[in-house]
Amino acid sequence: MKLPVSTEWVLHCATTLAQLEPGTSASTTQLALYFDLPVPYLAKQLKALVKAGLLSASTGPRGGFRLARAAAEITLLQVVEAVDGTSSPYECREIRQQGRGALPPEECRAPCVLAVKMAEAHQAWRRTLAATTLADILTGIPPTAPARTRHRLTTLT
Amino acid sequence: MKLPVSTEWVLHCATTLAQLEPGTSASTTQLALYFDLPVPYLAKQLKALVKAGLLSASTGPRGGFRLARAAAEITLLQVVEAVDGTSSPYECREIRQQGRGALPPEECRAPCVLAVKMAEAHQAWRRTLAATTLADILTGIPPTAPARTRHRLTTLT
Repeated sequence: MKLPVSTEWVLHCATTLAQLEPGTSASTTQLALYFDLPVPYLAKQLKALVKAGLLSASTGPRGGFRLARAAAEITLLQVVEAVDGTSSPYECREIRQQGRGALPPEECRAPCVLAVKMAEAHQAWRRTLAATTLADILTGIPPTAPARTRHRLTTLT
Repeated sequence: MKLPVSTEWVLHCATTLAQLEPGTSASTTQLALYFDLPVPYLAKQLKALVKAGLLSASTGPRGGFRLARAAAEITLLQVVEAVDGTSSPYECREIRQQGRGALPPEECRAPCVLAVKMAEAHQAWRRTLAATTLADILTGIPPTAPARTRHRLTTLT
């Protein structure tokens, strides 16, 4: 199972936007130059973050993207699921009900125990990512980083 | 992120083999008929379980597959990773070190905090699946199921 390559992009872009001064934005071009990413594909991912309510987009010469709410209110899970969706990596196609060994319907009213365990694992994964916000991530970067990030990012054209 | 469709197959096949009497086996054809699965692709998955040391294969008219060790010593994680590998779904390509915002190498001696969190989530997923064995799964099926499974499976030709 693989998350899309853009998962790393959106996590880093969101973390970067979390370092901007309130009221300031960064454009797709600025973020693409900052991380050397392809503009059209990055634009699509940023739109997904806007659609998920994590970023706000504004137009005009000083327009661009900023966090739609406080960094402490945006979790890694929300960022990851904005681009990859919420579905479990395990797909139960109910093979217990097919073939010559098919179980009768009355034994399949409860979900398959294997599917239940796989769902529990997915929930454990989700809980871990839901427990970390962008604000938590910022506490793990060097104290001088945000000022440098702001300067580098907002001077890119 | 998606696990291969065969993940459900191998989980069910391993659970089914865990219900056989000691010393008995089931062939690829029997398992394929039991769940209505394509023989060649299922054969490939069963080989992966043998390679991972979870199943033993024997040849001859009564040959086939059986668990290579006790059901209490085979975890769901081992079965899943036998067909999908152990790597994390998140791929860190170190975009923090590329582009105009590239961090200097001295600030990248520690792993990226985002990659660390994504790895923690993967470990939480793995821990959940490592905590459940095939023997645990058997406790969740109807008490009459194993005898029926054995009868149905071993009479398939």
